[in-house]
Amino acid sequence: MSEPFWKTAISKVEPNKILVRGYNLMDLVGKYNYADLTYLLWRGELPPANHSRMMDALLTVCLEHSLNAPSVDATLFVASSGVPLQAAVSAGIVAIGDWHGGAIEQAAKMLQDGIQSAKDRQMSTRECAQEIIKDHSERKEKIPGFGHPTHTKDPRTVKLLEIAGETQLRGPHVELAQVIESLTDEFFRKHLILNVDGCIAAIISEMGFDWRLGKGFFIVSRTPGLIAHAYEQMYNDRPYKAPDWNEITYTGPPERPVPK
Amino acid sequence: MSEPFWKTAISKVEPNKILVRGYNLMDLVGKYNYADLTYLLWRGELPPANHSRMMDALLTVCLEHSLNAPSVDATLFVASSGVPLQAAVSAGIVAIGDWHGGAIEQAAKMLQDGIQSAKDRQMSTRECAQEIIKDHSERKEKIPGFGHPTHTKDPRTVKLLEIAGETQLRGPHVELAQVIESLTDEFFRKHLILNVDGCIAAIISEMGFDWRLGKGFFIVSRTPGLIAHAYEQMYNDRPYKAPDWNEITYTGPPERPVPK
Amino acid sequence: MSEPFWKTAISKVEPNKILVRGYNLMDLVGKYNYADLTYLLWRGELPPANHSRMMDALLTVCLEHSLNAPSVDATLFVASSGVPLQAAVSAGIVAIGDWHGGAIEQAAKMLQDGIQSAKDRQMSTRECAQEIIKDHSERKEKIPGFGHPTHTKDPRTVKLLEIAGETQLRGPHVELAQVIESLTDEFFRKHLILNVDGCIAAIISEMGFDWRLGKGFFIVSRTPGLIAHAYEQMYNDRPYKAPDWNEITYTGPPERPVPK
Amino acid sequence: MSEPFWKTAISKVEPNKILVRGYNLMDLVGKYNYADLTYLLWRGELPPANHSRMMDALLTVCLEHSLNAPSVDATLFVASSGVPLQAAVSAGIVAIGDWHGGAIEQAAKMLQDGIQSAKDRQMSTRECAQEIIKDHSERKEKIPGFGHPTHTKDPRTVKLLEIAGETQLRGPHVELAQVIESLTDEFFRKHLILNVDGCIAAIISEMGFDWRLGKGFFIVSRTPGLIAHAYEQMYNDRPYKAPDWNEITYTGPPERPVPK
Repeated sequence: MSEPFWKTAISKVEPNKILVRGYNLMDLVGKYNYADLTYLLWRGELPPANHSRMMDALLTVCLEHSLNAPSVDATLFVASSGVPLQAAVSAGIVAIGDWHGGAIEQAAKMLQDGIQSAKDRQMSTRECAQEIIKDHSERKEKIPGFGHPTHTKDPRTVKLLEIAGETQLRGPHVELAQVIESLTDEFFRKHLILNVDGCIAAIISEMGFDWRLGKGFFIVSRTPGLIAHAYEQMYNDRPYKAPDWNEITYTGPPERPVPK
Repeated sequence: MSEPFWKTAISKVEPNKILVRGYNLMDLVGKYNYADLTYLLWRGELPPANHSRMMDALLTVCLEHSLNAPSVDATLFVASSGVPLQAAVSAGIVAIGDWHGGAIEQAAKMLQDGIQSAKDRQMSTRECAQEIIKDHSERKEKIPGFGHPTHTKDPRTVKLLEIAGETQLRGPHVELAQVIESLTDEFFRKHLILNVDGCIAAIISEMGFDWRLGKGFFIVSRTPGLIAHAYEQMYNDRPYKAPDWNEITYTGPPERPVPK
Repeated sequence: MSEPFWKTAISKVEPNKILVRGYNLMDLVGKYNYADLTYLLWRGELPPANHSRMMDALLTVCLEHSLNAPSVDATLFVASSGVPLQAAVSAGIVAIGDWHGGAIEQAAKMLQDGIQSAKDRQMSTRECAQEIIKDHSERKEKIPGFGHPTHTKDPRTVKLLEIAGETQLRGPHVELAQVIESLTDEFFRKHLILNVDGCIAAIISEMGFDWRLGKGFFIVSRTPGLIAHAYEQMYNDRPYKAPDWNEITYTGPPERPVPK
Repeated sequence: MSEPFWKTAISKVEPNKILVRGYNLMDLVGKYNYADLTYLLWRGELPPANHSRMMDALLTVCLEHSLNAPSVDATLFVASSGVPLQAAVSAGIVAIGDWHGGAIEQAAKMLQDGIQSAKDRQMSTRECAQEIIKDHSERKEKIPGFGHPTHTKDPRTVKLLEIAGETQLRGPHVELAQVIESLTDEFFRKHLILNVDGCIAAIISEMGFDWRLGKGFFIVSRTPGLIAHAYEQMYNDRPYKAPDWNEITYTGPPERPVPK
């Protein structure tokens, strides 16, 4: 095969020099912050000013959700087992699945497809929203990015929409997400709030991100917290965290003899 | 560098042929069982008959310990997050750390060093055991492979010793482990049982395994169970397993205003 | 919620006793081998004799494929980074994805759905196979479990079919897989062999396994090899395995100044 | 046990409210950036202004090192296997081991112990540096945080020291690290540069961080890059990345018959 085995468009290392997307990393550090450089890594270009401000909010707004998150819980158990810090963190990262942060991907795809389809077929945002809701309800599927078990108004959505307003990023994808929210009462007889996953999805769509990078926002957002929880478990809690034998309900067959 | 980047002594693939340690894998399958072939992979040679029987026991005796194991618990949380099966299993594997299966390594090193040292310095097993206990108690360290929070007599140790007897594998390392156990009452004023980690350590030392492969036995032993638990969680339990917000005790600072 | 948080039907621990699916684990060890007990964990019952023999073959036939496997390669890089054994193994496990062992799941689902559908609609195996091929070719999808980049006749398929013959397990699912293979020349103008993933899929379907456990076979099969490769890398190769800077082809933008 | 099973000092969730270390997260977002909030998570307090600027530099300076990093390489192989994004990232995270970012921990411990010891025993920085070098050279151990295979002057160290100067963070730990560097020529007959790990170690020690959080800086720093590489591999490169069978050097025993 003529393609080189080791190749990348992301960065280049030479003795005493590191280029990231063409820029000397040392000319960026101290001038652009972590959120800006994450944007550079993912998009290939430095962010315009409004994207820069939004990016930082997107990467901090779901910083923490206490132990009410399977990723954090997985991290705790691993951290209690006598492993190095990164091992515990890796277990938390791998838990960022379809039902835990992953709705960002699915919601961003849904909103991007919806806006494209509305444009192609000259539908209004309202018609587009109705179609999306109908599709999901016919397939008996949840609409990704809507509803929350704990919050009745997701404070993170409120904050992100506020900053999206200030940064001129409340465009058609955000509008579509909000119209869907407003129609849920009618269709489902209960209000499904636009949750933080759905709101991030709408805003990153507005900013032109590929929906397949959606989980990336959640992963970066949660990594410092996973480290904090692993550290807390390792140095401030007992080793070998697990329920005791008599706290576990056994639902299998009763004791039986091994066949002869 | 003259060393090839991709090299291994373990196996070789050619079109329509797979060699493992020199043997055609297809001549082994159906003739040697899983435990035998694990032995071949790790040692480079097929096991003699007594090692074969022992190997299978070593790989099955710690098959399961219910949810009373951080590895299984980590697997459950990850499995509940909307991820593929292997992702949940990987989180369980990474939890097999120094305090969860890892004592096999440390105990095997201790026993192998002890027997070597006894030989070099012409000490009796009893003297060697006393020295090991003193060393650990002076450094205020636990003796790896001894003591258990749930079992007062580890049933797995009993079973392994029985099979080790049948297979002529109760040699000096096993003896040393048993003498250490018998001396714990005197030194610590409580009896520390030889647990399954310590017993596996003794037997694999007897069989000539490098202590640095110790965790391998526990990893292989627990993998089918991690798969079973992941599967059970994915298809028989709720998604997004986590404690509810009101079940979590917060021990940090009370609510405070953000500085101006 | 009234459901207990910690519950499982798989096993139960009490002081000095471990039950697996109702059996005392110590009555199983030494009597049933690793493959049998894996079967018990996944199915809830001990295997009949023909399933026992087949199970062991299924768990050993894809034991190793040298470094020609992303899971092994991932393990090597992690093992070279100064981590404990299980960390390197976990990286290999997580790589057992849709394109690496995962075809077992998809192929088993396809064959199970096919046989069910053939029964419901009174189709012949040949008609069923034709329908499956047409469906995939219309959707421009690969048929999972068929074709191999290295082997022109997968030696593992040959071996498994031989043992399936001896154990009376060459039933309708296996037949369907073989008819699909025989029809590929006609439909695709090249022969797509029944590869080991497809063959495992057919046989476990024959044995009554849920297709969603398909990857489990591959995971268990590869775990001892991942351990062997991690160990070889850690103690017989250089640390920090990575291509040197001048072996990497950079395909990004040329060096450019950071904007003012 | 009276200790609650689920407890944390890091954050608290209530319906519609998330507190992080006592602050309402929504009052922080948009006002404090990602580096500030990482600091809050790890230290429990918001950073003073000079720490804030330094923190951001610490988290961006080792953003990328192309494929010349085992963590990135592990991520590529996993990403090529048909897995979700986070699975590939988790494999990269777990590779951040003792020889890949982990020197930050060890170097920070060494420098913190050194400065403490110099204070206790009224040694000069030069005497302290000499003692550290002698200790390591007698134990035939590398000094963590010194030397680099590619860079003859680590550009990241240069940048960090510049910002540490601007932020009044070039205190005793940084001085000790620099004196060690200056003495390497004499002791080892070659110059061992203060590399980025050693420099981060010195600065975080200056800032008062526990050395056991050292790897956290590297993990956060590399996470966006691991995501970028996983994404690039998944959507711009071939699936099932692995060397072909004929690119692998087999160093095991030649083909041999299976014993009767």
